[in-house]
Amino acid sequence: MIYADNAATTKMSDAAMKTMISLWQEGWGNPSSLYTHGQKAKEILEKARADIAGIIGASSKEIIFTSGGSEADNQAIRSAAAYGKRQGKWHIVSSAFEHHAVLHTLKALEKEGFEVTLLDVHENGLIIPSEVEAAIRDDTCLVTIMYANNEIGTIQPIREIGAICREKGVLFHTDAVQAIGHIPVNVEADHIDLLSASAHKFHGPKGVGFFYAKKGVPLTNLIEGGAQERGKRAGTENVPGIAAMAEALKESVTAMETTAAHLIKVRDRLITGLRQIPHAALNGDACHRLPGNVNFCFEGIEGESLLLLLDDKGICASSGSACTSGSLDPSHVLLAIGRVHDVAHGSLRLSIGEDITETDADEIIQAVQEVVAYLRGFSPIWRDLTTGKKDFIL
Amino acid sequence: MIYADNAATTKMSDAAMKTMISLWQEGWGNPSSLYTHGQKAKEILEKARADIAGIIGASSKEIIFTSGGSEADNQAIRSAAAYGKRQGKWHIVSSAFEHHAVLHTLKALEKEGFEVTLLDVHENGLIIPSEVEAAIRDDTCLVTIMYANNEIGTIQPIREIGAICREKGVLFHTDAVQAIGHIPVNVEADHIDLLSASAHKFHGPKGVGFFYAKKGVPLTNLIEGGAQERGKRAGTENVPGIAAMAEALKESVTAMETTAAHLIKVRDRLITGLRQIPHAALNGDACHRLPGNVNFCFEGIEGESLLLLLDDKGICASSGSACTSGSLDPSHVLLAIGRVHDVAHGSLRLSIGEDITETDADEIIQAVQEVVAYLRGFSPIWRDLTTGKKDFIL
Repeated sequence: MIYADNAATTKMSDAAMKTMISLWQEGWGNPSSLYTHGQKAKEILEKARADIAGIIGASSKEIIFTSGGSEADNQAIRSAAAYGKRQGKWHIVSSAFEHHAVLHTLKALEKEGFEVTLLDVHENGLIIPSEVEAAIRDDTCLVTIMYANNEIGTIQPIREIGAICREKGVLFHTDAVQAIGHIPVNVEADHIDLLSASAHKFHGPKGVGFFYAKKGVPLTNLIEGGAQERGKRAGTENVPGIAAMAEALKESVTAMETTAAHLIKVRDRLITGLRQIPHAALNGDACHRLPGNVNFCFEGIEGESLLLLLDDKGICASSGSACTSGSLDPSHVLLAIGRVHDVAHGSLRLSIGEDITETDADEIIQAVQEVVAYLRGFSPIWRDLTTGKKDFIL
Repeated sequence: MIYADNAATTKMSDAAMKTMISLWQEGWGNPSSLYTHGQKAKEILEKARADIAGIIGASSKEIIFTSGGSEADNQAIRSAAAYGKRQGKWHIVSSAFEHHAVLHTLKALEKEGFEVTLLDVHENGLIIPSEVEAAIRDDTCLVTIMYANNEIGTIQPIREIGAICREKGVLFHTDAVQAIGHIPVNVEADHIDLLSASAHKFHGPKGVGFFYAKKGVPLTNLIEGGAQERGKRAGTENVPGIAAMAEALKESVTAMETTAAHLIKVRDRLITGLRQIPHAALNGDACHRLPGNVNFCFEGIEGESLLLLLDDKGICASSGSACTSGSLDPSHVLLAIGRVHDVAHGSLRLSIGEDITETDADEIIQAVQEVVAYLRGFSPIWRDLTTGKKDFIL
């Protein structure tokens, strides 16, 4: 199996697994308990918090553990919105290609009276900072722009956007689920007030994530109950999972430079190879891009059939976000960068991990070439395109 | 170590651990992915759902996986409240000694305009069904009563309460976090519309739980985002954790009768032994009680010191809910059953698990006897009591 869907989920690292297993066996106490067995769990929890905080340039008290990136996004955005509401500020700035955990939360807020401006991400999938600045109004309570896109991998000018928000006195949230552990992120340098992350995107376990909230940002609870997480997120802490997340993040960050260099090499080999396929195009900027992300559109084919045939060849890939698979609608991300419906339907996302080799890349290229050619062989759209009934777009 | 705090958290069972580890190694795909590796995870997820549904008398589509009991409580209650709001029904019936995941959610709803009636739980810690009936009004949208109390272990007459709610056409939610896996629960027979559960209370992993929502009960999302859990709970599913939860529940339920018989025997031995301590009293009904729960008040001592000294003797116990430890307030549960502040402060909860032996029980009894006597030796309250300055209550 060649696993090229690390943006959907990653395999847990051996070190994270080892940490988790040993804690399930020995460190499984409830950190709220007074006895030694509970306090040991508490220490492990706080060590994990300090480690994670240190890595992103935060302090321990600014880290809240959650069940994952979606919960983190929801709570971060709802906190900023509730704070805005109390100040009579009902306007939020975001982008058209955020993750659904952001977009659907914003939709819910619209129903509650908020007004949302979705910025254009342009053809290359990048936000222009001056457009953020222009969109901010006196009643803007939040700007939420993802650090790196989950489908096309474009990395936003977060530092510039952060600086603008800080200067304007508007809270800035970034969904950094695809960035953390893969590219350098520093909340201080990037002027970030709220940030969301998910462990299973960087070889940690599923069901664990965190958000950072800069000291002084008032938080709204999503889950009410016990006094865990300084009263901001109820529920017995998943200490083994949290410690495994910290372990995975430490590993990822330590190896980041080496990993990125390797991934970029293989990524660009893939891009060069796939570009040989006629009427194909890379989605998203080629430079401001996650080291492990490749996303192509192939005219005249259905992405779903492409994936199933690649699966037959032992290649795991996706057409876009795993969270929206099963839907017949084309990716909102690809539509946001201006791909028309027909073209957006023929998309392929390869999100590669450290274990990928150049041989794997060549195997993928050959497989995609074969499958695209095969599918085009009986595609009515392709026939229309090649017989001139329809015009090629790519 | 004698671990007698299973109501706070339990150790994962070997079978659940084995399931989880093998899935982290092999079945870690994203269940939303189309390829075989993802679909395998999806199958495991749906198998776990069917197993859990079967155990509680539900159908698969009625089970939503969450990050734990607190999230489940929050979403279940918020769903019923939102549905009530749409029908102009703003009244909720609950009890004074619910878990904080319920009580704090109700507090938040009060701020949003809901009216909450908290029923008396009386001296024995039991709700009287006719009092539920009397509290239901034309504008009542929800009755939420816990199945078994987390501190004093009393088991409520859930079936009678459920029947009343069903007859009156009011939604009935039960926080069954302490009941599931320990005593028989059947949502059909018990007329339950919404039920919450948490894996780590029955030897499953932390960070995983579920709620049951009877077909037709409209749900409100707590976490917006991807289309997971039929669009009702976003976030990549923690398949290894969920499968481990199902495994742990199956095990618990299979062994339930044997376990309960053993626990009741040891529990009653503990109760008999601890009753020998002067000015001590069992909290909560002696019969309608979880097999593994013992909860005492000892006059003239501080619960916290008791716990720390028991810890020195290798015994893990608590004074009440782990979720509220660190707070100086006495347990709201003990206050709800009429214990005065001074007495409520001197509480001890022992929540025993299958591994407990009668020898362990005797060791606990002796340790508690010694520690209570020791602490009373320099307690100013005890001096006041014994010198007649204050009157004994127990």
